[in-house]
Amino acid sequence: MRKVAESTVRRLSLYLRYLEEFALHGTETVSSETLAHLGGTTSAQVRKDLSCFGSFGKRGLGYAVPELAQHLREILGLTRRYRVAMVGAGKIGSALVSYRGFRERGFDIAAIFDSDPDKVGRQWNGLEVRDIADMEVVLGEEAYEMAVIVTPADVAQAVSERLIKLGVKAILNFAPVQLAVPDDVVVKHVNLALELETLSYALANR
Amino acid sequence: MRKVAESTVRRLSLYLRYLEEFALHGTETVSSETLAHLGGTTSAQVRKDLSCFGSFGKRGLGYAVPELAQHLREILGLTRRYRVAMVGAGKIGSALVSYRGFRERGFDIAAIFDSDPDKVGRQWNGLEVRDIADMEVVLGEEAYEMAVIVTPADVAQAVSERLIKLGVKAILNFAPVQLAVPDDVVVKHVNLALELETLSYALANR
Repeated sequence: MRKVAESTVRRLSLYLRYLEEFALHGTETVSSETLAHLGGTTSAQVRKDLSCFGSFGKRGLGYAVPELAQHLREILGLTRRYRVAMVGAGKIGSALVSYRGFRERGFDIAAIFDSDPDKVGRQWNGLEVRDIADMEVVLGEEAYEMAVIVTPADVAQAVSERLIKLGVKAILNFAPVQLAVPDDVVVKHVNLALELETLSYALANR
Repeated sequence: MRKVAESTVRRLSLYLRYLEEFALHGTETVSSETLAHLGGTTSAQVRKDLSCFGSFGKRGLGYAVPELAQHLREILGLTRRYRVAMVGAGKIGSALVSYRGFRERGFDIAAIFDSDPDKVGRQWNGLEVRDIADMEVVLGEEAYEMAVIVTPADVAQAVSERLIKLGVKAILNFAPVQLAVPDDVVVKHVNLALELETLSYALANR
C-alpha cells in the first residue's frame, strides 16, 4: 500500500465531495485556494496532498473539476461498489442501514446479522435480519470484502475472525474493543464516546 | 491549550479504558508494555504519550493503576459531567441518545431539538424532543458547553451559530459540511461514509 497518512486520505475524500458539488453546478475548474478554503486547510496542503498521486493542476488555471474528481475516485477505490455485511442489529446498526451516505458512495449493506431471536427475521430497509449462526451460509454465496461490526465488545473479536475467514478484508468496528486481525486486513475503529473525549480534552486544556 | 496531537489524546482515552478495566479487577500496577499491547502501539509510544503530562511510572514497577487512571481523567477533562444539547432527532440522533458510552463517560444528552412537527413532543429516553424554534428558551435556562449536531447539511451552520451564541464551546458534528466557528470553539467532525472510504482506499492500494 502506498504510504499515505490517514489524515491525507480524509482530506482527499473531502476534496472529492466539493469537486462533485462543483461538477453538479457545471463548474469546470477550481483553484487549490478554493478547495483549501472549503476543506479548512491551506492551498499548499491541497497541492501537497494531490501531488502524492501525480500531477493534476495546470498553473494559473487550477484543477479540471471532472478529471480531478475521477482521479480521486480512482485513488480512493470508489470507482466500484462494495458489498458490506453488517453484524449487530441494534440502534446504531439501524441508523447505519438507512444512512444514505453509505449507498451514495458505493457501499451497499447487503446482509445484516444478529443473535437475538426477536430481531432475526425482521425486515430492515428491505433486508431481512439473519441469524448470526447462518453467517457462513449467507455470506458464502457472494463475495463480501467489507463488514461493519456493531456488536457488544465481548463478541466482536470472534465475529471478526468469522468474517475474515469468509474473505472480509476491511472492517469498520463500532464495538469498544481493539480487534486483533491479520496483516492483510484493515480495521477502522469508530468510538463515539472517544470523539466526545477529544472535545472534553480541548475544553479542559484551553 | 497544550499542543498535543489528536492521535495522542485518542490513545490516552484508550489507555484510560484499559486502566479502568484493570482497576475493576483489582490490578494495582500495569507496565507500559501491557498498555501498548492492548492499545495496539509500542511501549515507547505509551511512555512518550504519558510523559507529555508529567512523570507517572516507577522504573521496574510500572504504573499505579488507580493513580494513572485519575491523572488521565483529569487530563481528558473527565472529572466532571457535561450537559450536551442535541439538534436533530433522526435515526442517528436516536442511536446516540440511547448510547450508553456517552453517559458512562460523563456526557449527558439533556436536551433534544428538531424542526419536524411529527417529532417535536415525542419522548426519547425520558427526554421530550423540543421545537428547534424554542432552542434559545430551553438552553438559556442552563449552561450547555457541548452540542451534537445531527441535522441535514444545509442547516448545520445556522444551528451551530445559534448554539455558540448560547455558550456552546464544543460541537460534535455529524452533518456532512465543514462548520465555520470562532477560534474559541472546537468542532469534531464525524463522517461515517468517510470512515468507509479510508477502508476502500486501503483495499484499492494494497
